[in-house]
Amino acid sequence: MNFASDNAGPALPQVMQAMIAANEGFMPSYGEEALMDQVRDRLRALFEAPQASVYLVATGTAANALALATLSQPWQTVFCTPLAHIHVDECNAPEFFTGGAKLSLAGEGDKMTPEALLAAFAAWREGDVHNPQRGPLALTQATERGRLYTCAEIAALCDVARAHAMPAYLDGARLANAIVALGCTPAEMTWRAGIDAVSFGGTKNGCVGVEAVIFFSPENAWEFELRRKRAAHLVSKHRFLSAQMLGYLEGDAWRDAARAANARAARLAAGLRRLPQARLACEPEVNMIFARLPRATHRRLRAAGARYALHEGPLDTGPDETPLLARFVCDWSIEEAEIDRFLEIVAG
Amino acid sequence: MNFASDNAGPALPQVMQAMIAANEGFMPSYGEEALMDQVRDRLRALFEAPQASVYLVATGTAANALALATLSQPWQTVFCTPLAHIHVDECNAPEFFTGGAKLSLAGEGDKMTPEALLAAFAAWREGDVHNPQRGPLALTQATERGRLYTCAEIAALCDVARAHAMPAYLDGARLANAIVALGCTPAEMTWRAGIDAVSFGGTKNGCVGVEAVIFFSPENAWEFELRRKRAAHLVSKHRFLSAQMLGYLEGDAWRDAARAANARAARLAAGLRRLPQARLACEPEVNMIFARLPRATHRRLRAAGARYALHEGPLDTGPDETPLLARFVCDWSIEEAEIDRFLEIVAG
Amino acid sequence: MNFASDNAGPALPQVMQAMIAANEGFMPSYGEEALMDQVRDRLRALFEAPQASVYLVATGTAANALALATLSQPWQTVFCTPLAHIHVDECNAPEFFTGGAKLSLAGEGDKMTPEALLAAFAAWREGDVHNPQRGPLALTQATERGRLYTCAEIAALCDVARAHAMPAYLDGARLANAIVALGCTPAEMTWRAGIDAVSFGGTKNGCVGVEAVIFFSPENAWEFELRRKRAAHLVSKHRFLSAQMLGYLEGDAWRDAARAANARAARLAAGLRRLPQARLACEPEVNMIFARLPRATHRRLRAAGARYALHEGPLDTGPDETPLLARFVCDWSIEEAEIDRFLEIVAG
Amino acid sequence: MNFASDNAGPALPQVMQAMIAANEGFMPSYGEEALMDQVRDRLRALFEAPQASVYLVATGTAANALALATLSQPWQTVFCTPLAHIHVDECNAPEFFTGGAKLSLAGEGDKMTPEALLAAFAAWREGDVHNPQRGPLALTQATERGRLYTCAEIAALCDVARAHAMPAYLDGARLANAIVALGCTPAEMTWRAGIDAVSFGGTKNGCVGVEAVIFFSPENAWEFELRRKRAAHLVSKHRFLSAQMLGYLEGDAWRDAARAANARAARLAAGLRRLPQARLACEPEVNMIFARLPRATHRRLRAAGARYALHEGPLDTGPDETPLLARFVCDWSIEEAEIDRFLEIVAG
Repeated sequence: MNFASDNAGPALPQVMQAMIAANEGFMPSYGEEALMDQVRDRLRALFEAPQASVYLVATGTAANALALATLSQPWQTVFCTPLAHIHVDECNAPEFFTGGAKLSLAGEGDKMTPEALLAAFAAWREGDVHNPQRGPLALTQATERGRLYTCAEIAALCDVARAHAMPAYLDGARLANAIVALGCTPAEMTWRAGIDAVSFGGTKNGCVGVEAVIFFSPENAWEFELRRKRAAHLVSKHRFLSAQMLGYLEGDAWRDAARAANARAARLAAGLRRLPQARLACEPEVNMIFARLPRATHRRLRAAGARYALHEGPLDTGPDETPLLARFVCDWSIEEAEIDRFLEIVAG
Repeated sequence: MNFASDNAGPALPQVMQAMIAANEGFMPSYGEEALMDQVRDRLRALFEAPQASVYLVATGTAANALALATLSQPWQTVFCTPLAHIHVDECNAPEFFTGGAKLSLAGEGDKMTPEALLAAFAAWREGDVHNPQRGPLALTQATERGRLYTCAEIAALCDVARAHAMPAYLDGARLANAIVALGCTPAEMTWRAGIDAVSFGGTKNGCVGVEAVIFFSPENAWEFELRRKRAAHLVSKHRFLSAQMLGYLEGDAWRDAARAANARAARLAAGLRRLPQARLACEPEVNMIFARLPRATHRRLRAAGARYALHEGPLDTGPDETPLLARFVCDWSIEEAEIDRFLEIVAG
Repeated sequence: MNFASDNAGPALPQVMQAMIAANEGFMPSYGEEALMDQVRDRLRALFEAPQASVYLVATGTAANALALATLSQPWQTVFCTPLAHIHVDECNAPEFFTGGAKLSLAGEGDKMTPEALLAAFAAWREGDVHNPQRGPLALTQATERGRLYTCAEIAALCDVARAHAMPAYLDGARLANAIVALGCTPAEMTWRAGIDAVSFGGTKNGCVGVEAVIFFSPENAWEFELRRKRAAHLVSKHRFLSAQMLGYLEGDAWRDAARAANARAARLAAGLRRLPQARLACEPEVNMIFARLPRATHRRLRAAGARYALHEGPLDTGPDETPLLARFVCDWSIEEAEIDRFLEIVAG
Repeated sequence: MNFASDNAGPALPQVMQAMIAANEGFMPSYGEEALMDQVRDRLRALFEAPQASVYLVATGTAANALALATLSQPWQTVFCTPLAHIHVDECNAPEFFTGGAKLSLAGEGDKMTPEALLAAFAAWREGDVHNPQRGPLALTQATERGRLYTCAEIAALCDVARAHAMPAYLDGARLANAIVALGCTPAEMTWRAGIDAVSFGGTKNGCVGVEAVIFFSPENAWEFELRRKRAAHLVSKHRFLSAQMLGYLEGDAWRDAARAANARAARLAAGLRRLPQARLACEPEVNMIFARLPRATHRRLRAAGARYALHEGPLDTGPDETPLLARFVCDWSIEEAEIDRFLEIVAG
């Protein structure tokens, strides 16, 4: 009963097989290997973007921080939501990689609207040397609360960005979950909606550790490469990043894994909806559920070995009936029986 | 005939097996998994340092830049040789991670002496706010030219550093090759000689991508962890870094791989010594050889598919007989037959 | 009728005289001159802090950014209000000088409460490597809205900071105005209330350009000196900074100037209170007034040559009766007749 | 007998007068005052560069570090001499302001040649992501040893830079001394020779503290302004910087001061040449002399109150006859009688 994170589960067999297969003989290093050419071709085709620059890094934070640094200047401010991973979960990596840019918060919780973005812009006087200048818009899809922007919502936000000459970046650590949930194409969710750069996450959806960073305009390519190297994120035995991504793309393994994770979460959500003790904090759309359970229920779950992030607390002291917020993430590998067992414990 | 780099070959079977074995079920992420406890125990035992702080990162540049940033301040200067990897091969990663510290060059080529270090110190006025302040000593073992410091030489350099209140860091991307070549213990080569922090490289010696960073004094631990996260080098599915390191340590696989690589290079060096066309640039002590071969010989080697780094050039134009410097690296996997074939081509 | 800023007026005669007097013969540079010894003695006496480290810089932003950088680490977050000068008016200087620390906003507008500070702390998980770590508290006295913290309010905030092992910094660009308004001693407003470092502003209160940075504990002294030099803020002909500060301190010129500025603002506020067209946005306590005037009134004032910062707009289009927020700053030199003329124009 | 530095003497009467004259009434701040328009016009005329962007800062290190940061990228390397002020006297300010660029040393001592610059280029593999990329050339005129580049020498160096698509910066802390010594125009020494940006120093030649930074191409203007603000070097009461520069330019005061300083140094050098005890380290061309005097002579000078920088030592112990290198700087204000008294003491 592990709902701690989608990075707590194993890698997909296809991904491991691809790594094993790549472990043969000598190859060029640092992305010069032929496997990376295949990755580039596959991702350009998947995103219908034949001119796109495609890079691989090993962590989601690297993808975000390097992409934002490439799209911004140190005297600018990035715009993101108060719950954005780049703001709350990266120990100032964006500030470090950008050389000291600021993050300005727009919107409530995990989602932004064009109105909220415009209000955040208005807080800074454009062209006034005393305050930070407007920099990139940064969205997360699926959001940190397991919700989705429709492609139209993304487009509306990017329109605002473009009207103010700002680039738009999409943190796609769970892009696969979003794509299969919305049934749209990767292109529709990204460049067709106005996104300039996106990370296409592998790690949380069944890879060992790989994220693709895709720039739809080629002008940032060389700068990104230099920033990646300078940040120590250019991997020497790059074949193992390439192989992971190929295994992930092969036969649409990434879609299957995302569908599986989303379906497990839907089963869990449906079960919780039926239980009077549980209250969903918001309507889950991918593989993450935020729900409140009574403190006593949390204690029972913990005692039974369930693992998940408790966002409120403390658990140990306080009235049994107080509901506490928790996050439950389903990865592709969690078994339905585990979910059902979890629901039984909640039911009490 | 691939002598391009020790990152061009495959990973050790033991390393791959350990990764596959680790790909089972759920585990905590970010180094909280039990496998990392084993890594910590094993490395503390290997280095006879029960209090050491032990961390894993995926690249050698990350190990170097993070360790140096932890040991220095932005207004200081690191001391290294003119050929140090941190100076010539990391695209300013040390400057980036340290927040703008300077690298001061001491010694000639790949090696430093206490005299050279003292001369480099003398270039900066201690305690004068106008110039950079003295920061860490950074050595590479084995050096970038495939040579070795004896443990006594390291100790003599660390004595100078300590006498000036400076910490000493050892870039051990090829530490395994050095340890087996000198026949000393890891402790003798590091903390017993005065080293404060060392990277114990796995990537170049048969891993997929893992380096251990070891601080012998625990005081830097938390800062290193924060710097690692902030630099996007804290891997979420950390089990795969831990597994690699365990497979590498298991049954002394690391020693066997380093011995194999060194032996192959010795065979190559012995062969080149017998050939009048070839001239070794320095006496190789581990798995790297720098030698000069006539331009015509290089052309023949290239035509036959041999891969290695040519340090002088151009190859295409110029008199056939001009000797050009090249680097030949042997990894653990290269076959003796390949070496012999290479020597035959050189012999002409 | 210039209410644009307290940096738009002239320097005090005493300050200019001191600079002229200092322009004699040869002196050591970089703060080694005897004048700086006098400054140090005078400020230590004024703040009743014989161990304090005292430095001079030429700009308020330099004072803030250097002090915060000295008190923080790049992986931390500073806590300040949404209107803090360091957040909205320094073009990311704090992020730059700290090496990428974050600014977390606490409280509403220009003032913070212990409750707001605790709530801001709660947003970050202490000791969790994934999010920024708690760093210094930064307050502004007088605030950016011309209001004051009582010494007890400062002490209550510093108590919270200290209970969480965080240092407290006070941006005192208008500290003189605050001290004379509250009638307390500099010590009561700073270290006795728990402040670890303060800037004692001169520029806005009649100097040419000088701010003292005072650390009440000596441990940060050398780091500050290195940071100042590295940021190009160590002035070579430092005698002219020292002289300014001595002229400013001489005969309590600083108190007289601050009292004059506060009194002018009080006259202006009293006048505005009597006029139905004007609405004070908050109760002014020093030399800055925020008030709303009808758009038509603003137009009349502009036409008459009045200068001040309009915070809402646009002025040119829109209904005459709409009130728009503006800031009116009085420096020591503005004449009462100018204020009265201004009020007449507002009266219409 | 103060030869410590050209920042140890007083400011020119014209400069002080201009500051006093500027201290009247209200003016816009931050360089928006009309005085700055005059400065801009005057400097564009002086440099025959009607399109140039002109800025004022208060310190030479700020001028250098901000200009270099504007002309470079963090993954590049600046090229300068081993004695360059930016390398040895700024406590890593260039590394800080550039966000971690490297300084590569070219040439010997204080001067560079095209050959030395080409050799320094050759040390870095162009377009190879692993090493730093080529960045700006940085020259100092007059050099840190009081010598000069002819305009033709500057042009030859800039030609090399331009051929490699690198910008060229000239640290002109003592540009005035160089211009009057060579008898050329400011334009000939800068943009006509290929210089892209220059600092025109005032501080060392009779100002209180002001340096102009001039970009001959306007494309860097806005970035420089943002970098200046973010580095806390945008002065609020900017009128006092403008006034200094106007006083300095008025009636060619800057030329007269530079000529006076150079003449005093020539008198000193001529005197030393006549004395067998003294040995000039190089032929002085402006207002700085490097000479070796016996340790006993240094002791006599010190005892008589002479002040200057001793570059070798220690003074207190060692044989009387050992010659020790020292630097003697003459500012515009030093009297001939002082020089003659100094020479008498040397003569013994």
